[in-house]
Amino acid sequence: MGTSEAVMHVLSGAVPRLLSSDLCFSNSDLVCSSKYHVKSLKKIGSRYVQPFKHSSMTRCEIGSSRCKQLRSSLYGNKAIDRLKLLSCNCQQAESVSGLGMEEGNEAWFMDSAKKLNINGSVNSPNVLEFEDVEQLKREKKGSISNGTAGHGTSTFHKASVDSTEDEAWELLRDSMVYYCGSPVGTIAANDPTTSNVLNYDQVFIRDFIPSGIAFLLKGEYDIVRNFLLHTLQLQSWEKTMDCHSPGQGLMPASFKVRTVPLDGDDSATEEVLDPDFGEAAIGRVAPVDSGLWWIILLRAYGKSSGDLSVQERVDVQTGIKMILRLCLADGFDMFPTLLVTDGSCMIDRRMGIHGHPLEIQALFYSALLCAREMLTPEDGSADLVRALNNRLVALSFHIREYYWIDMRKLNEIYRYKTEEYSYDAVNKFNIYPDQISPWLVEWMPNKGGFLIGNLQPAHMDFRFFSLGNLWAVVSGLATTEQSHAILDLIEAKWDDLVADMPFKICYPALEGREWQIITGSLGPITTVVPGQLYSGRLLTVACIKMNRPDIAAKAVSIAEKRISRDKWPEYYDTKKARFIGKQSRLFQTWSIAGYLVAKLLLRDPSAAKILTTEEDSELVNAFSCMISENPRRKRGPKGLKHTYIV
Amino acid sequence: MGTSEAVMHVLSGAVPRLLSSDLCFSNSDLVCSSKYHVKSLKKIGSRYVQPFKHSSMTRCEIGSSRCKQLRSSLYGNKAIDRLKLLSCNCQQAESVSGLGMEEGNEAWFMDSAKKLNINGSVNSPNVLEFEDVEQLKREKKGSISNGTAGHGTSTFHKASVDSTEDEAWELLRDSMVYYCGSPVGTIAANDPTTSNVLNYDQVFIRDFIPSGIAFLLKGEYDIVRNFLLHTLQLQSWEKTMDCHSPGQGLMPASFKVRTVPLDGDDSATEEVLDPDFGEAAIGRVAPVDSGLWWIILLRAYGKSSGDLSVQERVDVQTGIKMILRLCLADGFDMFPTLLVTDGSCMIDRRMGIHGHPLEIQALFYSALLCAREMLTPEDGSADLVRALNNRLVALSFHIREYYWIDMRKLNEIYRYKTEEYSYDAVNKFNIYPDQISPWLVEWMPNKGGFLIGNLQPAHMDFRFFSLGNLWAVVSGLATTEQSHAILDLIEAKWDDLVADMPFKICYPALEGREWQIITGSLGPITTVVPGQLYSGRLLTVACIKMNRPDIAAKAVSIAEKRISRDKWPEYYDTKKARFIGKQSRLFQTWSIAGYLVAKLLLRDPSAAKILTTEEDSELVNAFSCMISENPRRKRGPKGLKHTYIV
Repeated sequence: MGTSEAVMHVLSGAVPRLLSSDLCFSNSDLVCSSKYHVKSLKKIGSRYVQPFKHSSMTRCEIGSSRCKQLRSSLYGNKAIDRLKLLSCNCQQAESVSGLGMEEGNEAWFMDSAKKLNINGSVNSPNVLEFEDVEQLKREKKGSISNGTAGHGTSTFHKASVDSTEDEAWELLRDSMVYYCGSPVGTIAANDPTTSNVLNYDQVFIRDFIPSGIAFLLKGEYDIVRNFLLHTLQLQSWEKTMDCHSPGQGLMPASFKVRTVPLDGDDSATEEVLDPDFGEAAIGRVAPVDSGLWWIILLRAYGKSSGDLSVQERVDVQTGIKMILRLCLADGFDMFPTLLVTDGSCMIDRRMGIHGHPLEIQALFYSALLCAREMLTPEDGSADLVRALNNRLVALSFHIREYYWIDMRKLNEIYRYKTEEYSYDAVNKFNIYPDQISPWLVEWMPNKGGFLIGNLQPAHMDFRFFSLGNLWAVVSGLATTEQSHAILDLIEAKWDDLVADMPFKICYPALEGREWQIITGSLGPITTVVPGQLYSGRLLTVACIKMNRPDIAAKAVSIAEKRISRDKWPEYYDTKKARFIGKQSRLFQTWSIAGYLVAKLLLRDPSAAKILTTEEDSELVNAFSCMISENPRRKRGPKGLKHTYIV
Repeated sequence: MGTSEAVMHVLSGAVPRLLSSDLCFSNSDLVCSSKYHVKSLKKIGSRYVQPFKHSSMTRCEIGSSRCKQLRSSLYGNKAIDRLKLLSCNCQQAESVSGLGMEEGNEAWFMDSAKKLNINGSVNSPNVLEFEDVEQLKREKKGSISNGTAGHGTSTFHKASVDSTEDEAWELLRDSMVYYCGSPVGTIAANDPTTSNVLNYDQVFIRDFIPSGIAFLLKGEYDIVRNFLLHTLQLQSWEKTMDCHSPGQGLMPASFKVRTVPLDGDDSATEEVLDPDFGEAAIGRVAPVDSGLWWIILLRAYGKSSGDLSVQERVDVQTGIKMILRLCLADGFDMFPTLLVTDGSCMIDRRMGIHGHPLEIQALFYSALLCAREMLTPEDGSADLVRALNNRLVALSFHIREYYWIDMRKLNEIYRYKTEEYSYDAVNKFNIYPDQISPWLVEWMPNKGGFLIGNLQPAHMDFRFFSLGNLWAVVSGLATTEQSHAILDLIEAKWDDLVADMPFKICYPALEGREWQIITGSLGPITTVVPGQLYSGRLLTVACIKMNRPDIAAKAVSIAEKRISRDKWPEYYDTKKARFIGKQSRLFQTWSIAGYLVAKLLLRDPSAAKILTTEEDSELVNAFSCMISENPRRKRGPKGLKHTYIV
């Protein structure tokens, strides 16, 4: 990352955090502002506490994972009201994460300490470089010239940036969230036209993924590393609704940096990280996808930056294992797929995707592969790795075999007998041919196919979900043949799936009575045609992996025509995406970041390898063994398999 | 159990198992037929193997959990074609169950060995007592007089039994299933009018519960003990679909006694127990309720028989713990309720009860209480007991608070604000008032209330499900006040819930488009108005517990008018239950047993205590503490709670 490109937020002590403005300066390395001096270095229990003395006005107490500031302006100038104070690069990530940190932390800490020049003073001469100051001026000017419009980025950006891509970068940096001065994520949306913030001012794990990838592709690794380590801390929080706690491995859906009054000091505030595991979420939905995305991003960080020290840290390894244990825990299910409740991925609203939705399964498969790659071999994890490998085989077989649909398979289902009771039933899940939706019969192209949205006992959800299908291509959950068929289908059904704005998250949209029953007439999405989320990154990665980047390029060029003009909306409504969605936010970060990822990857397709995974030969072998095996042979009392033949 | 009442099945070697007929003789104690001699007693590894020499024609090989028989008629008379051979009381239950059996088995084994007079000969003089032989004659006569009708029990029984109750007993005994001569369960239905058996010839765990209770109330304990121990064996089977296995604690949905050719011996057959964990089930549904019912029945067995030795066995204790571990395993969910897929309880068809259906939660709560009562204290299980206690508190709070609905609560929901984001949201689950079904607004009586069928993020299923509500009363999951309110509602809505046949399993039935979408136009149940399942045992137990037996008596007297005449159907259709269900089996065992349980309990209400559980004071205390606690206070990083105040 070039320092010139870094935007750093400085928090003014004079104003509440939410109203603070941006000031650009360098956060590209761990250089502390020269005003601040490291006073001492203590170790309390197993945790490193690193109190800094900050000109006696602002202090950052790291041991308790909070950042304290006095309520007075560092600059004494209220006009600079969007300044945020970078007190220091606190390294809370290490100092609070409670798990096996001795080893892992020490390394990073010492590394940072060196840069901080721990012996008393910090030598780095400058913080505000020339270009940063220039950018600050432009920002301020834009802000002022817009007067009452509040944020008013669009007018300003149109005039001052060269292209849509530059504008996107600027907006993405505007969305960055700082904790004790370090960038730790991006907020979900930065829409100046809406007063009802709800939780759009939080850092969502799933929403940060495109942002994180964009930063990685740009060579800006710190924000991703901070994000990974801070969310890791949050994983070990106690999370309860009423008095029930989900598994310890659960990652939060989102977190927020809050500025709260400091106990016992009326004039001081402190920053705290406040995670939401679903206890406050609309509908109390626990985020199953968060941990899976976290693992995927962790691998991408290592691949991209070359810095494997993060994934090798003891606490990070523990975090990976905790997520795996939660996913691989014994359940009642006969299916190798993860059973989840509605709203546990994609968006926190009902979309009729409870049960075993494809999206979760694709992320699950991908996270298992990524985790296997990163887990350091040790005696204690042999069982976990064995469980992981077994699940990979079972899961890929299940999805490839039972979720796959094309003309041949559709005709097979169309002729299914029902109520078969046997081990060899053709219609294993007792699907009634009546369930085949009328639209599908006409819609399925002769060439191509896709993975259906959901499979449960006696129920197939035949809708086409983009993320699940594209991520199945990216992760190799779909076979090579299936992957090409998915892209074939996208080409054949371009007008439905892309139309004037790539890419529908789901086709077809639920309508009328069905929509009422399945979604409970819920949520902001009436016709479910959001645009950008997948357009950029997913389609692009999938197409690059299959060596068909032209498809992605076409989609991105369509998006480019409107996306900036429409102010980067969260989603669109109507079949042809003619309207900006009724409750759609503007300046939605995932729209901005998704676009950037697509542009960067199309420019350098080889970078897509940080996201793709390949099936290894071991898995392929296990898979083919499994298919040729007669499942009946495998039955028998545990441990008596060979003496007991049914 | 009186020997005179016992019906014993003898398997003829001359005919396949399915065509064999019943022969009455004693199985009331562990007395082996005097023809058979115990030859030797071996111990292989940790398993007891007990080979018997059976007149050199039939041998029962216990060590491998199968019973071998020569393909030649024991009686040399093909006319007695429904005879089943009781080769011996094999005690496979002990000999195969692989877990910690040394200690537990030895006790039971020695006990049985004494009765078997292990020293060479068996002294018990008679097996076929007079009354049994008489009954056999009647059976045969009935069978012959009906000619082509096959089973033809109804004609015969009408003439020969005194009352509906006697007929029910006879039918229940007809449904008994034997394994190597011991009664181990009852088949689901014994319908002579249907050629398509599907899996109705299996012993379903959930279907056996009313049968088991009936036998316990009658003092016939052996069949229940055998059932408990044989299903325990099956729990430790390897269970796979394709190559995925559910958790080891899973109990099968059903099992079947199969007679298969013996390897290496063309003229011999053997009996094997063949469980189904959902790998062969229609729709591949794993049975979540099986293990919960098993624990409930285990406690009832101990309470009823006074024989606590079964629940104290090491392998039984291990079985309980395995079920608990499966239920209490860490999950993603914010809810303390169990997340399941559709069809995991009640019936193996889609009924739109995926997610967190009340029935599963009521059984879960009940099983937790029963398990806690039975677990022998030991060092290794402290964590499990702690998890169990925590879950009991969280679960009861969640159900009592969020599933409960009455006029006051309904009006509250009716006025809900939506899309609240906060810890203190009134509308925690983001329920849209539009979701309140139009029928409910009119239907809810002024006095009374009930627990709704399901609660998920943004979704309430307002249907009234009988089993869940009644079992919540029986188990004390509902408060005393709520329990009375449920009975009040049943009285107020008698015409809808009972009409001419107690008791609908669900009200209202899904119809039209909603039925198509939610159930996928599935299954045999079009209007979901089955009758007997709950009529007898559940309503009766609930009413007796609340000291309002008159309600149950009224329901039973209504059932009595039709149930025998209608040939004990599986369920009824139409709102007033005017038609026997379209795909309803006749002579459904649960209908028969449910009726018997009701009759027996109304005669001796004190016996209901084998099924009811009371909330203990510890739980009540924890509960009230919890309610008064501010959930926000509990948040914070694990282990830093006290130093870190948000």
